[in-house]
Amino acid sequence: MGRWQPDAEGRLQRAALELIADQGYDRTTVAEIAASAGLTERTFFRYFADKREVLFAGQERFIGMVVDALIAAPPDLAPLEAIISAFGATTAWFDERRALARSRQGAIDAHPDLQERELAKVAKLSAAMTQALRDRGASEPQAALAAAAGVAAFRFGFAQWLADEDGHDLESHILSAVEDLRKVTAV
Amino acid sequence: MGRWQPDAEGRLQRAALELIADQGYDRTTVAEIAASAGLTERTFFRYFADKREVLFAGQERFIGMVVDALIAAPPDLAPLEAIISAFGATTAWFDERRALARSRQGAIDAHPDLQERELAKVAKLSAAMTQALRDRGASEPQAALAAAAGVAAFRFGFAQWLADEDGHDLESHILSAVEDLRKVTAV
Repeated sequence: MGRWQPDAEGRLQRAALELIADQGYDRTTVAEIAASAGLTERTFFRYFADKREVLFAGQERFIGMVVDALIAAPPDLAPLEAIISAFGATTAWFDERRALARSRQGAIDAHPDLQERELAKVAKLSAAMTQALRDRGASEPQAALAAAAGVAAFRFGFAQWLADEDGHDLESHILSAVEDLRKVTAV
Repeated sequence: MGRWQPDAEGRLQRAALELIADQGYDRTTVAEIAASAGLTERTFFRYFADKREVLFAGQERFIGMVVDALIAAPPDLAPLEAIISAFGATTAWFDERRALARSRQGAIDAHPDLQERELAKVAKLSAAMTQALRDRGASEPQAALAAAAGVAAFRFGFAQWLADEDGHDLESHILSAVEDLRKVTAV
């Protein structure tokens, strides 16, 4: 094994998802994940703080992508429009990974510890989006409430996308959730 | 100490909040909380599963109050209107307890473990409200998205109410948050 591991992080994540799908989260060890990826445990811990985190590294990257896209969105867009535009910059990344996203969600749904971390990451996403909207000049109730509304629409659209057997892309599910949210709040 | 303890649960909660405000969550033991309330540890564990839970029993009661009020709300109310009406049935209970609510929030904000449980309870509230809206006949995107929007407005309004030095009541802060949410999603 060379010192330089091309896409070690991605290999560890894919190995983890495969093992967890086969044998469950509790019975899957870091040693197995590393071995299955052709890497050492030490390499695993260079990328991930613990066993749970291997399932959430993608979510950290997603938060970074959304914040960068929010900052880069045209300054004249209203907060929720900017959020829709920012999500749009991330959906292709998910669409290429639907099978992995489904395995990951299955693992999370089956395990309270993972659900806890999922909720913590969602709160982190919401806080990061609120701050990015403030930096764009949104006022205080606007920033926090647009971020909360956007996260709600994303989560609902994401769940619909995971369950969708017809293969519609993530962006269309998110846009549809935003429209439903607009209808529900207009009353 | 008699076998029958009037408001043992409330006394344990108030004792816990006072001790936590004085000396921090980590340094406060169940034994101290029970002693300060004039009760035994055994009585504590009859009411609360663990030390964290003493801070969240009120939240469980709140979830029950909201769900009951949602079910009882006039059937012709749209989902978000029914939610506003349901929250309205709970706000007097909070307004009588603003000082305790502030101590509790201070403890939670200072401790990651408590934040985790707070997020889990918020997720539980959202799921319970979604189910109650379904039972009222709301369609699927409506039920989940109205619950998410309502929870977002409640949380924002609640934070504003806790920070409010002018003593406006919780309901006015929630209604104001719902209006801001409507503005932000209308664009």
